[in-house]
Amino acid sequence: MTFVRNRWYVAAWDGEIGAGAFSRTICGEPIVMYRKLAGDVVALRDACPHRLLPLSMGIREGDNLRCRYHGLLVGPDGKPRQMPIVHERVNEKICTPTYAVVERHRFVWVWIGDQTKADPNLVPDFWPCSREGWVFDGGYMHVKCDYRLFIDNLMDLTHETYVHMGSIGQQELMEAPLETSTDGDRVVLSRWMPNIDAPPFWRQALKKEGKVDRWQICHFVEPCSVLIDVGVSPVEAGDTLVSHDSGVRGFVIDSMTPETETSSHYFWGMARNFDVHDAGVTARLKAGQSQIFAEDIEILERQQASIAANPDMALRVLSIDSGGAHSRRVIERLMKQDA
Amino acid sequence: MTFVRNRWYVAAWDGEIGAGAFSRTICGEPIVMYRKLAGDVVALRDACPHRLLPLSMGIREGDNLRCRYHGLLVGPDGKPRQMPIVHERVNEKICTPTYAVVERHRFVWVWIGDQTKADPNLVPDFWPCSREGWVFDGGYMHVKCDYRLFIDNLMDLTHETYVHMGSIGQQELMEAPLETSTDGDRVVLSRWMPNIDAPPFWRQALKKEGKVDRWQICHFVEPCSVLIDVGVSPVEAGDTLVSHDSGVRGFVIDSMTPETETSSHYFWGMARNFDVHDAGVTARLKAGQSQIFAEDIEILERQQASIAANPDMALRVLSIDSGGAHSRRVIERLMKQDA
Amino acid sequence: MTFVRNRWYVAAWDGEIGAGAFSRTICGEPIVMYRKLAGDVVALRDACPHRLLPLSMGIREGDNLRCRYHGLLVGPDGKPRQMPIVHERVNEKICTPTYAVVERHRFVWVWIGDQTKADPNLVPDFWPCSREGWVFDGGYMHVKCDYRLFIDNLMDLTHETYVHMGSIGQQELMEAPLETSTDGDRVVLSRWMPNIDAPPFWRQALKKEGKVDRWQICHFVEPCSVLIDVGVSPVEAGDTLVSHDSGVRGFVIDSMTPETETSSHYFWGMARNFDVHDAGVTARLKAGQSQIFAEDIEILERQQASIAANPDMALRVLSIDSGGAHSRRVIERLMKQDA
Repeated sequence: MTFVRNRWYVAAWDGEIGAGAFSRTICGEPIVMYRKLAGDVVALRDACPHRLLPLSMGIREGDNLRCRYHGLLVGPDGKPRQMPIVHERVNEKICTPTYAVVERHRFVWVWIGDQTKADPNLVPDFWPCSREGWVFDGGYMHVKCDYRLFIDNLMDLTHETYVHMGSIGQQELMEAPLETSTDGDRVVLSRWMPNIDAPPFWRQALKKEGKVDRWQICHFVEPCSVLIDVGVSPVEAGDTLVSHDSGVRGFVIDSMTPETETSSHYFWGMARNFDVHDAGVTARLKAGQSQIFAEDIEILERQQASIAANPDMALRVLSIDSGGAHSRRVIERLMKQDA
Repeated sequence: MTFVRNRWYVAAWDGEIGAGAFSRTICGEPIVMYRKLAGDVVALRDACPHRLLPLSMGIREGDNLRCRYHGLLVGPDGKPRQMPIVHERVNEKICTPTYAVVERHRFVWVWIGDQTKADPNLVPDFWPCSREGWVFDGGYMHVKCDYRLFIDNLMDLTHETYVHMGSIGQQELMEAPLETSTDGDRVVLSRWMPNIDAPPFWRQALKKEGKVDRWQICHFVEPCSVLIDVGVSPVEAGDTLVSHDSGVRGFVIDSMTPETETSSHYFWGMARNFDVHDAGVTARLKAGQSQIFAEDIEILERQQASIAANPDMALRVLSIDSGGAHSRRVIERLMKQDA
Repeated sequence: MTFVRNRWYVAAWDGEIGAGAFSRTICGEPIVMYRKLAGDVVALRDACPHRLLPLSMGIREGDNLRCRYHGLLVGPDGKPRQMPIVHERVNEKICTPTYAVVERHRFVWVWIGDQTKADPNLVPDFWPCSREGWVFDGGYMHVKCDYRLFIDNLMDLTHETYVHMGSIGQQELMEAPLETSTDGDRVVLSRWMPNIDAPPFWRQALKKEGKVDRWQICHFVEPCSVLIDVGVSPVEAGDTLVSHDSGVRGFVIDSMTPETETSSHYFWGMARNFDVHDAGVTARLKAGQSQIFAEDIEILERQQASIAANPDMALRVLSIDSGGAHSRRVIERLMKQDA
């Protein structure tokens, strides 16, 4: 097992789930999701409890799904509502596993593992995705790699120079010192660049002349997300690593939900507190991220294949990997708690 | 092992095997078949006993196959007739396994397992496929599922409502009572619908007005066939579940020969005792069955994949599954006899 | 393990390796090769010692490769030249395995296994590929079979009759006696055809009328090559199996480097001492070989698949297989020395 079970995972964007059955494998478990008539999302194991045909092939009837094989009618609680022989007594023991669901911060979260522990308060706080005064959009990509390789990638900003040579790579980023800190299950990798010229993108966002302080702060959010706080503020505002809301600010949102041990669902996007009513900025950010993440994915999939092809070699940890290494230690600890 | 070994299996339609080498894997064993000059069918393991090149790639010489690699000439008894160096003494120990063959009821049957037990009297009695006054035709499909899933499917008629929604599904079929009976290795699932209006297809076949008795009787024929006796007869004839030849009658023929543990060869067709000289009826029946079975196959292949994807879930047996459940018990018992 | 490790293997044609990184898996190990500025070839494990991204995706800088992920600069000795953070102290323990390389006889050879044993004097003597007065050309094919099946094929000339029915197969070849001899790790299969009419190809090469002596002598060169000495000389010259340089002579060169246990790299060609300045002859020989070897490869890939499909059957050894059988015994002995 390479992932934590007793946790909330992003299973879908809110917009992906409608009235129709939607199927996705999360942490190795095939899950069917759909919205009840009242609008809330249901998540069931995607297998009829009778003969295991995927329920996602079924027929929606009210808030239930009728299996396309023998017609067993399964309710949103995974229990049968009607047997194939309609007048037969319903046997509630014939039911499919269900998953607790919370819809929050634009995502549909499901709880894998012990359902009695599914506390909605444990949903990670992706506040920039849903706070007033902020706007958030993004996309989805399927990636053929262990989600932890993706965390390594995001908890390190030095890879930008080479992986993103053709887009955002900048040698000068390598110069600024990075700091890693941990506090319980939180890992933070931060870079503070005081009193510099704002690069064009941020200058335009800020809409002000003059020197700025710039930051990039990667937060590992267990079990599989990285939120990257980025932005600039005027030097004279005196912002700090801890408090920096005087300028313009965004969060790169990355959640890499395990599909299998060697493949992941990548939910990505950008939340921001500037130009929030400018749909053109939103669209350009999304297009830009899409291009950049495709560059990462090419690397990650080749890395995954190479790990399999070189079983005698181990991943080595350099100073730049401390963010990822700390994050992996958190994951190890949580997996032990599962067991 | 998921199949019985000491049994006759349908390996091909009679028309599939001619002078040329024909290769098909039966119960995990690659088998090459061809017709001798006298017309009888030979079945050998499809591997030259010398260096294992498939004999089906070979050159037909009289009733022998010459391997395309080094020219070893293999006879229909699997023994060498000539060595690669033509003047060398033939070593009869270098031979390939052979399979007993019987051609009967329009099919070529091969005996898998212990060849000394291959008694032609044990070939299942598919009499409607070869009796005078009857006509029989059908087809072949490759299916990526365990043959037992197919038996479950055929030994239950309730699935028609949903699987065949777009074709033959009828909710009223669910209303008629089904009865399962067993007698030794035989399992019979039957439905007798007395004194009803004949549906259009049967009305046309019967060519008579008036109420009819209608029947659907599924016979599991071990190890992997299901014969479904269907038809109608005038009420006044007084036919019964045991004897019903006063009207029109057909048999849906289904034989699901295992290829591997998760794939099957599906031989299907319809035998009937009405309109036997009307080739148009034959062609329409075949076209109709082909469409209906394609609907089943879509379900069965998805079910097979779902079983693999949900290893923690088990197939459950409801009342409608008793035909399949009894049939699986027969298979279990026969597999134990093999061992 | 099905191959010897402590040996030189052909990894590439000399012309395949240039300034750019070239990747090929040899004996299960992904290897990246490139030419240094001085022209000599470097071979490294194709994985950055940091996070295992293939180095073949990297950026060439002088004689080094910079990893495309975090920019670790790896030298031709597999050791780091510069860390991702450029001012960090270089940690030489973070290095990738290297392979000894020799470029000889038109091929790039790499030593797999214990690098301290990589003695250039052990490179097989493919002298016809590089001797003055001779010319050599050929090609490369990827083959999905165990390299030993290919050795069996080449250490037996009788298969030509059937495998090459459409091209060079001749029943009369089967008539001439073959002799197998061994001497330590060398296995020789030879056929001497005295006082015959030269076939058209050799008549044209010899450019002389009159009876000839003709020979075909297959040399197994451990661990995975076969060199076939072929030619004719005028009867009156009195050539022998041991000494035959009075006429025209060629060597069919075959080296089958294992990629995995069931796939190989096939390096093939023809060296000759006649018409050495006629590029048309060279081109026609290459085209002809290419066609003939494609016929072998079809057989070998089907044989490999059949071996997997018939696990209860064993490869049998006939008199014609003695060349291959002796060669396999040499390989077995060398594998034991490895262990």
